[in-house]
Amino acid sequence: MTSQIFSHDVQQTLDLIGIFVFALSGGLLAVRKNMDIFGICVLAEATALGGGVMRDLLIGAVPPVAFTNMGYFVTPLVAGLVVFFLHPEVERINRSVQTLDALGLGLFCVTGTAKAHDYGLGSVPSIALGMLTAAGGGVIRDVLAQETPSLLRWDREIYAVPALVGATMVAILIATHHLTTLTATTAALTAFVLRMLALRYGWRAPRAWHRNGARVSEE
Amino acid sequence: MTSQIFSHDVQQTLDLIGIFVFALSGGLLAVRKNMDIFGICVLAEATALGGGVMRDLLIGAVPPVAFTNMGYFVTPLVAGLVVFFLHPEVERINRSVQTLDALGLGLFCVTGTAKAHDYGLGSVPSIALGMLTAAGGGVIRDVLAQETPSLLRWDREIYAVPALVGATMVAILIATHHLTTLTATTAALTAFVLRMLALRYGWRAPRAWHRNGARVSEE
Amino acid sequence: MTSQIFSHDVQQTLDLIGIFVFALSGGLLAVRKNMDIFGICVLAEATALGGGVMRDLLIGAVPPVAFTNMGYFVTPLVAGLVVFFLHPEVERINRSVQTLDALGLGLFCVTGTAKAHDYGLGSVPSIALGMLTAAGGGVIRDVLAQETPSLLRWDREIYAVPALVGATMVAILIATHHLTTLTATTAALTAFVLRMLALRYGWRAPRAWHRNGARVSEE
Repeated sequence: MTSQIFSHDVQQTLDLIGIFVFALSGGLLAVRKNMDIFGICVLAEATALGGGVMRDLLIGAVPPVAFTNMGYFVTPLVAGLVVFFLHPEVERINRSVQTLDALGLGLFCVTGTAKAHDYGLGSVPSIALGMLTAAGGGVIRDVLAQETPSLLRWDREIYAVPALVGATMVAILIATHHLTTLTATTAALTAFVLRMLALRYGWRAPRAWHRNGARVSEE
Repeated sequence: MTSQIFSHDVQQTLDLIGIFVFALSGGLLAVRKNMDIFGICVLAEATALGGGVMRDLLIGAVPPVAFTNMGYFVTPLVAGLVVFFLHPEVERINRSVQTLDALGLGLFCVTGTAKAHDYGLGSVPSIALGMLTAAGGGVIRDVLAQETPSLLRWDREIYAVPALVGATMVAILIATHHLTTLTATTAALTAFVLRMLALRYGWRAPRAWHRNGARVSEE
Repeated sequence: MTSQIFSHDVQQTLDLIGIFVFALSGGLLAVRKNMDIFGICVLAEATALGGGVMRDLLIGAVPPVAFTNMGYFVTPLVAGLVVFFLHPEVERINRSVQTLDALGLGLFCVTGTAKAHDYGLGSVPSIALGMLTAAGGGVIRDVLAQETPSLLRWDREIYAVPALVGATMVAILIATHHLTTLTATTAALTAFVLRMLALRYGWRAPRAWHRNGARVSEE
């Protein structure tokens, strides 16, 4: 079992922090979309747990951990209620939320990759599932709220690259038998720092260029 | 096996009624969206079976019952054809369709909760899956038709609360060993009556309030 | 095992061709939607593998073959990069892409139906999963790109019917013990030819008619 990177309590605490901030981002979008309290809670749950649930379905880990660990399920509800009652305050600390979200990104791309590998998947699919764990919930959030997934938009700071780097580091660490708490933390921090730099300096990914005669509409 | 609340024939009949009316709502949205006969049938299938299929995937009951019981699969096709040929009439009896839809809501939140519990899930996840069974198909319907899921919209009568009440009653009945045909029916009827009252009196759920300085746009 | 219709190498080659052209269609939509290089690759992956992954989840074949066979996963990335660098050229050969896409449609409705049957599903659900394999990726592509799924739109040439015909032929061939490489190829070619004819002659499926008093808005 490589996924036991951290002690159980540390892992659980980090997971819940990540879930909580992902849920905040879901709840805030629901408020912006003028949804009611139930919409807020549903979007908080879907954002926080969606990536991990899809990963668990794909590797055959059913029921997903989100449905067997009570804390995983209740945390997004708490986040939803916090947003419902305090959304102006949560918006105001949006920078802090983005920082925590970057932490969640770093954490989940690492643990997602390790868990997929534990279930027998190869390096490349494990990296893909690590990225899915980190970014999948946000895609579900945007689809439910009828927005183009921000993961796919060119005018948003890069999210996939930090996850890709963190997940790839874990896959290499596993393959070379160097995955320890220390190296896993390094991978998570690398993804976190890359994401923070992307936010700070507005890093964006290139779009396909538009040559003469290209039938590409600017939508 | 607590899920055998009703005799097999009664359960089957109720299921098919619920599936049929859910499929009608999918087909009607497809007609409003100007889709063709195949769009109508696909949306009827997705609406009617989507919630149960997601529940079955999450609890590991594969292939989902919708793919092993022929009646479950064919019923939405029949509903799709009914809508295709008779949609003005079906629109005209929309009130009756809403009544039947409320019955489906009551039924599926009860049977969904019981089935999740049968597969070893705890009370809270079972309630969540009961709500998913009742409301999930409608969310898939709206996403496929490119509408904001009516479950999440503040300007629609509450749908989640009746399902939550019915599912919670079942979870309590199971935990206290009181789940019988009679008590399960009571739970389903409670959800049904709550939904009918919500429709009758326009019950809506609260949105997050907008204080001074809150950056919430009215979309 | 009826799914071993073709020799392993032939099957693999055909699969990769189908995956590649499906991925091209995903990548091209991403370019039209002005997404960046990661959006292009994500949409290419989702379009190419989505249908097969959903089928594998529904029949309990986890992890899905897309996550265990490296070629299945890497091919859409290659297609994404091709679109990124050469999208005007790919648009220019759009007719050829549509031809290859029709080939993918024919192939996947046949292999999807056969695989579902191998996993113990009946004829009708196997046909449904064959259609899902062929058309599901395109639906995911359109939902992620915030478009009404072209499968459901009346103003697009029929896509479901060719898949339905091909899948039904396979189900009948299986039931009558006549599924061979030759007959399976015939079924795939039938679906392919139907789709090409639909494109050539603009075949569309009927919508529900609008009678007097029908509350159907032309959206």
